[in-house]
Amino acid sequence: MLSVVVLVVALISQTAARYTADWKSLDSRPLPSWYDQARVGIFVHWGVYSVPGFGSEWFWWHWQGQRPPDPKYVNFMLKNYPPGFTYPEFAPQFRAQFFNPREWADIFKSSGAKYVVLTAKHHEGFTNWGSPNSWNWNSVDTGPRRDLVGELGEAVRNRSIHFGLYNSLYEWFHPLYLKDKKNGFKTQEFVMHKLLPELYNMVVRYKPDLIWSDGDWEAPDIYWNSTVFLSWLYNESPVKDKVVTNDRWGAGCACKHGGYYNCEDKFTPGQVPKHKWEKCTSIDTLSWGHRKNMKLSELMDLPTIIKDLIRTVSYGGNYLLNVGPTPEGMIPPVFEERLRGLGAWLKVNGEAIYSSKPWRLQNENTTSSIWYTCKGNSVYAIMTTKPPKASVQLLEPITKATTTVTLLGNPKPLPWSPVNPNAGLTVLLPDLPSIPGMAWTLKLDNIQ
Amino acid sequence: MLSVVVLVVALISQTAARYTADWKSLDSRPLPSWYDQARVGIFVHWGVYSVPGFGSEWFWWHWQGQRPPDPKYVNFMLKNYPPGFTYPEFAPQFRAQFFNPREWADIFKSSGAKYVVLTAKHHEGFTNWGSPNSWNWNSVDTGPRRDLVGELGEAVRNRSIHFGLYNSLYEWFHPLYLKDKKNGFKTQEFVMHKLLPELYNMVVRYKPDLIWSDGDWEAPDIYWNSTVFLSWLYNESPVKDKVVTNDRWGAGCACKHGGYYNCEDKFTPGQVPKHKWEKCTSIDTLSWGHRKNMKLSELMDLPTIIKDLIRTVSYGGNYLLNVGPTPEGMIPPVFEERLRGLGAWLKVNGEAIYSSKPWRLQNENTTSSIWYTCKGNSVYAIMTTKPPKASVQLLEPITKATTTVTLLGNPKPLPWSPVNPNAGLTVLLPDLPSIPGMAWTLKLDNIQ
Amino acid sequence: MLSVVVLVVALISQTAARYTADWKSLDSRPLPSWYDQARVGIFVHWGVYSVPGFGSEWFWWHWQGQRPPDPKYVNFMLKNYPPGFTYPEFAPQFRAQFFNPREWADIFKSSGAKYVVLTAKHHEGFTNWGSPNSWNWNSVDTGPRRDLVGELGEAVRNRSIHFGLYNSLYEWFHPLYLKDKKNGFKTQEFVMHKLLPELYNMVVRYKPDLIWSDGDWEAPDIYWNSTVFLSWLYNESPVKDKVVTNDRWGAGCACKHGGYYNCEDKFTPGQVPKHKWEKCTSIDTLSWGHRKNMKLSELMDLPTIIKDLIRTVSYGGNYLLNVGPTPEGMIPPVFEERLRGLGAWLKVNGEAIYSSKPWRLQNENTTSSIWYTCKGNSVYAIMTTKPPKASVQLLEPITKATTTVTLLGNPKPLPWSPVNPNAGLTVLLPDLPSIPGMAWTLKLDNIQ
Amino acid sequence: MLSVVVLVVALISQTAARYTADWKSLDSRPLPSWYDQARVGIFVHWGVYSVPGFGSEWFWWHWQGQRPPDPKYVNFMLKNYPPGFTYPEFAPQFRAQFFNPREWADIFKSSGAKYVVLTAKHHEGFTNWGSPNSWNWNSVDTGPRRDLVGELGEAVRNRSIHFGLYNSLYEWFHPLYLKDKKNGFKTQEFVMHKLLPELYNMVVRYKPDLIWSDGDWEAPDIYWNSTVFLSWLYNESPVKDKVVTNDRWGAGCACKHGGYYNCEDKFTPGQVPKHKWEKCTSIDTLSWGHRKNMKLSELMDLPTIIKDLIRTVSYGGNYLLNVGPTPEGMIPPVFEERLRGLGAWLKVNGEAIYSSKPWRLQNENTTSSIWYTCKGNSVYAIMTTKPPKASVQLLEPITKATTTVTLLGNPKPLPWSPVNPNAGLTVLLPDLPSIPGMAWTLKLDNIQ
Repeated sequence: MLSVVVLVVALISQTAARYTADWKSLDSRPLPSWYDQARVGIFVHWGVYSVPGFGSEWFWWHWQGQRPPDPKYVNFMLKNYPPGFTYPEFAPQFRAQFFNPREWADIFKSSGAKYVVLTAKHHEGFTNWGSPNSWNWNSVDTGPRRDLVGELGEAVRNRSIHFGLYNSLYEWFHPLYLKDKKNGFKTQEFVMHKLLPELYNMVVRYKPDLIWSDGDWEAPDIYWNSTVFLSWLYNESPVKDKVVTNDRWGAGCACKHGGYYNCEDKFTPGQVPKHKWEKCTSIDTLSWGHRKNMKLSELMDLPTIIKDLIRTVSYGGNYLLNVGPTPEGMIPPVFEERLRGLGAWLKVNGEAIYSSKPWRLQNENTTSSIWYTCKGNSVYAIMTTKPPKASVQLLEPITKATTTVTLLGNPKPLPWSPVNPNAGLTVLLPDLPSIPGMAWTLKLDNIQ
Repeated sequence: MLSVVVLVVALISQTAARYTADWKSLDSRPLPSWYDQARVGIFVHWGVYSVPGFGSEWFWWHWQGQRPPDPKYVNFMLKNYPPGFTYPEFAPQFRAQFFNPREWADIFKSSGAKYVVLTAKHHEGFTNWGSPNSWNWNSVDTGPRRDLVGELGEAVRNRSIHFGLYNSLYEWFHPLYLKDKKNGFKTQEFVMHKLLPELYNMVVRYKPDLIWSDGDWEAPDIYWNSTVFLSWLYNESPVKDKVVTNDRWGAGCACKHGGYYNCEDKFTPGQVPKHKWEKCTSIDTLSWGHRKNMKLSELMDLPTIIKDLIRTVSYGGNYLLNVGPTPEGMIPPVFEERLRGLGAWLKVNGEAIYSSKPWRLQNENTTSSIWYTCKGNSVYAIMTTKPPKASVQLLEPITKATTTVTLLGNPKPLPWSPVNPNAGLTVLLPDLPSIPGMAWTLKLDNIQ
Repeated sequence: MLSVVVLVVALISQTAARYTADWKSLDSRPLPSWYDQARVGIFVHWGVYSVPGFGSEWFWWHWQGQRPPDPKYVNFMLKNYPPGFTYPEFAPQFRAQFFNPREWADIFKSSGAKYVVLTAKHHEGFTNWGSPNSWNWNSVDTGPRRDLVGELGEAVRNRSIHFGLYNSLYEWFHPLYLKDKKNGFKTQEFVMHKLLPELYNMVVRYKPDLIWSDGDWEAPDIYWNSTVFLSWLYNESPVKDKVVTNDRWGAGCACKHGGYYNCEDKFTPGQVPKHKWEKCTSIDTLSWGHRKNMKLSELMDLPTIIKDLIRTVSYGGNYLLNVGPTPEGMIPPVFEERLRGLGAWLKVNGEAIYSSKPWRLQNENTTSSIWYTCKGNSVYAIMTTKPPKASVQLLEPITKATTTVTLLGNPKPLPWSPVNPNAGLTVLLPDLPSIPGMAWTLKLDNIQ
Repeated sequence: MLSVVVLVVALISQTAARYTADWKSLDSRPLPSWYDQARVGIFVHWGVYSVPGFGSEWFWWHWQGQRPPDPKYVNFMLKNYPPGFTYPEFAPQFRAQFFNPREWADIFKSSGAKYVVLTAKHHEGFTNWGSPNSWNWNSVDTGPRRDLVGELGEAVRNRSIHFGLYNSLYEWFHPLYLKDKKNGFKTQEFVMHKLLPELYNMVVRYKPDLIWSDGDWEAPDIYWNSTVFLSWLYNESPVKDKVVTNDRWGAGCACKHGGYYNCEDKFTPGQVPKHKWEKCTSIDTLSWGHRKNMKLSELMDLPTIIKDLIRTVSYGGNYLLNVGPTPEGMIPPVFEERLRGLGAWLKVNGEAIYSSKPWRLQNENTTSSIWYTCKGNSVYAIMTTKPPKASVQLLEPITKATTTVTLLGNPKPLPWSPVNPNAGLTVLLPDLPSIPGMAWTLKLDNIQ
């Protein structure tokens, strides 16, 4: 009934609304400015899949959904669990007994991230909050017995970090979804009785700054009622002015409609996209959720992360870096180390990242691999390899007599000389500090 | 959507229907005849409550629902489970690994029962079948991983026993129900999104001969949509001709509306009620569900059960005797013994029970405690205590010269003599067989 | 060290002792009189095997010991437990949370039994007391976390019932035992480091009235050090005067050496043995330990038990009737019913059982099946079938004019008449009460 | 019996033996040379304590041993486990399902360690091998169901790493130990029936290169029979020539008797000790065993580890660095990262560590913090802070004209000039590579 009531309200109020329930109108909404400025976010995948902690957060699907099932998962279950053990039976072991949202938020703060996105509900359907539409399949009724979304949200916001929620439209095994699917998505039992009531409730309750929609690809947006939901979200919801969303609102929407674009996971464009975008990626290269048997060689090291961030920002993207906490509620120390290392680098070099824009050129390979960003009158040339000598050559910037060059973190201006009459400069470097991440930023002022 | 669709169908088809969605019409429907003839049924309470197996099937409510909670249950949990353990976490231990529906059905058959009623869903909301409206809170998704309703139904019907389903309208802790309740039952989210879709589905899927409705008392029938449902059930459903229901369809309905009347649990009238009724009672006098710490002194013994049955039938009632199986799927042997004992008695004396009617008088205390039933031209006088001598006196029957008296199970007619010219007879008894249950039936023919 | 110390003490003190460590001497010890008088005992098999509750208390052996393993057990484990689950991992589920030793003792008292024998340690090696030689494999360190032996012993003795302990000499899987076995029992590591220290400790600590030894058959008594132990038990132990033992003290000992003879399980001789003996048997005909999937048809009913008792006593034996409690600590109600029924019968007929002796003849089949016992000047003729008429004929007793006959439970003497001049009598019976067990005792005085 | 037999053998053979069972003789044994050369070892604490993963590997003691118990542990149990849960009940959750000994050994190899010491048995008494004297309380009978000692030993040795075993003499809660303790260690039940048979068995079975004895402090060596055991170990055991032990063999032995000295945990002398010693320390500064709630700030970072190693080696010690694997059998990635980082440093700088000796001076603080080692004719000056300029001054070495200086990892000799005529030199440094650990080694040849 909620869904029906809310939908009716949404429809009625639409007459006076700015945005109508169609993509043309919805796509015209300007992206709230905080998002482009933020640039760095932390993604958190946490759910029942953290309990087996094997393979990836797609555990259930690989084990029992796909045809044929993945033998790796089937064998894992055969070897470690009694026959007939069901996925929901993992839930009681999702205990979160060490979950301290303030400690998490401190780590996220220390990483320099400006927003955090938590999986409120992944494809498994388990909600990390006490959703009345997901009775006995949520973190309050079983397992953690806590409002994970609410607790983390409060801690994160208390540290002036934006708080977003990931929400999967589809649920692999929800019987009503499967029924609709079997009906060729001509029926909407799942959407009307489960998805939408829950989603409206979630927005009203937690007022997320960002909705990271996912799991949309099997059905068109018309099935999900996405445009109706978004028009409500933009016109009427309590977060209508600040909320940001992505582009996963139905088959064919990705990279085409919605707020900013994710396109695909770990999307890595070769030039500056025309539309604001975000790269989401995960420290654990094999999984977004916790894996109990994670090895060092499977993780991104800090320099890799920082280079990936620099490249992303240089191309105008936001960078959403994922960690998978344990079922006990800890962020594994190796992830904590990455995040704190990222923060240490951003403390010195963040000026070139936050609120920056792509420059007219993104990168060049000279005596170092250089990536550019700009902000106001400054251009930032980020060296992502250590120059072999005590100087570095930049060929693209066009200098003037008044051009100044500084190394971020270094107080004094650096001596430089032009390469050609028209362009390029050679900068004499000081002893480069051995900073985590191994990337150094030259700030160029009065330059073209 | 299902609910909506089905309701619409129901409403449309109602124009041509026999029964309209009001009590006057619904109450006018004749009770299908099989039910009154059956007389003896077995009630089965089986659910997640069988796992703690403590107190009763109201475990969850006593522990966490009522205010203040019952210290007995609170202490049981404190003593035996980790803090914060939630009721849904019992479900994985509901294993049913020894559940053999054919063995159960054999036991029920041996008891002489003509119908079996299984809890398809009790107040805890857990469905003993894979209800799509109760995802991850049903016997297929977790625990037994079997369709308990379907499997038992098939086995029972294969033995020519009628199969009924118990269904609780309310669910103590369903968040949508609690929301409707908080709204003074002015909203029907629970009814529309959960209860009705599930109930229609259950009827269509399992085609029960009997719906034993319960959990109705907190809200009026208008909230539950009971009359609409019943009109669909009687007019349109696949069981419209044979289905029997009881009287628990909303606050104030019990003993007043519906099919037969249960009135209250273990209802024991002092005279013949005007409306067909049923006494439901439980071998374990303290619980309907399994209790791990059941003691002999808390159970009805066979003579008590048989006397209770005789009294009930004598007053025109059906007798629905309950057993609580273990979470492993066994009927405790002490219950099996009662049921087989009941069947042994009925094998000899069932003629006085099945399809019988109340006589003009129900009982008298002479040299034994006598209860009467009748069928066709026969009157049955059931002695529920052993007469101290080799004869028994009946004061109420009016004999004729052609009157014959036999003891059920004894081939030869018994000698008798009148007590008064007008009424009464003294019957000379043979050596009474030491049968289980200790009740003997005299069949009187050609008598008034 | 304990074993060594105690053995030395035993050896030293032996010079003055009555019994030397050889069978000739040990077998000469008179059986303490309480035992022959007691006649009826309750056997209790309770251990980790109660947790799987499947097959029998030999679960572990059938599953993992015998070659080839029994597929029934292997499949049970494959179906219900994760691969590699080990037997010791059952122990934490042996919880005994409902174990109330006073309630048990009340039930045993009500059965008419005069002694109770509890498995202190079965072949699995798990001790139901905190044995220092069985660390972390006993009921105090894990599972029940209680001294089951001590608690039951106290409750039983408070009701004037003798308390005995079952102890298995061998332990199927004890690595030291397996080593000795591999060495052809030429080494005694198990005996010296485990068995004897534990056994001495158990006797000193719990002062059992009876030691029911078992698990002796794989090795000769010389391996077990049985004669040394018994000479200590009879000469020096705190129970030297009252303690009774059986005959399972080494390969070849059964039916030949020790205290009373068990010979084999459920031993049923066809005539009066020359040596005091005991029949142990189990209500559950398929197992001594608890079975979760026990069915009524697999259990002895009360008449069978009583007939078995009568026959056993008639042949001079004691009757030790077994029950298997649940892992939660309850005696299943169906067993409780048998025990209380047995007690009800003994209340009336116990005079013919307790302290009785075999008569010159054990049984005859006349108009009933008759079994005889005697005590003092009385002869007891127990009818185990109901005579078809109101009289019964006994052919063996030789009457005198002063002969009197009474029915136990019936106040008045019964009329009788001789059958022949020399022998036999016909007794006129009253209406036989329909007592549980269906056996009635005629007491004959002044008879030969 | 094993113990007795072995002891007798030991005593008999002693006449011809090199070492008698007294400290004077035992202390005279030269330390096998491999140990001093090895210098770097990995310590592995793995046991049932890894399951709760809380506090430290002393979990059981803090929870239930010490008086009063530590409220931190008591509350942890109260909050997360059912009342009465016992420590042995953790064992089944010690699964080691991801334990791959080859992967572990690869990591250890990559760390540059030359020996690995695994806890074969910690104070909890649980053996990581199938000890016949610890039935059902070892890694084969329960939990991992694997021979952890044997599997890791094989993998480690296949990579030419020495394999040592940690063994605790005392067991906090072993009932026989507690009995001996109560007897003021006048009895030796624990030692004779448990400790020694097990220890002899362990040595014969796994042939450890090193025995890391612990848990000795509550009783004198005479109680433990340490000198007898060691004389057997040195004279007769299969590892008599190569085995190394430490100094924890009885109260008062530490830093005084035995093989090399550990003195106390994390022992950090201020000068070169007279006797070969070892510093054991742990990456997790709060625990040796796994902690589920480990935070980054509680761990040693790589530079700290490398400085600690350098200082230890400079003072002549071995460095045994501890990791605590998870109950699932993984080395947490943050530990793996430390170990691989250590190995990367040793790859370049190991020449100054392995087989090195203390120099005549250990350290000086000039323009860097310098630590010295030497080997053959070379002196190694390890800079543990980065010199602020492109040169470093060493004041202690006495140069000659032929003196050469190289930076390990750098091919070419470095220019240098004397500071004073008599001593000291200033070395001109190349650009110091930003290596993990931030310590650089100057190799000085032809120097005094």
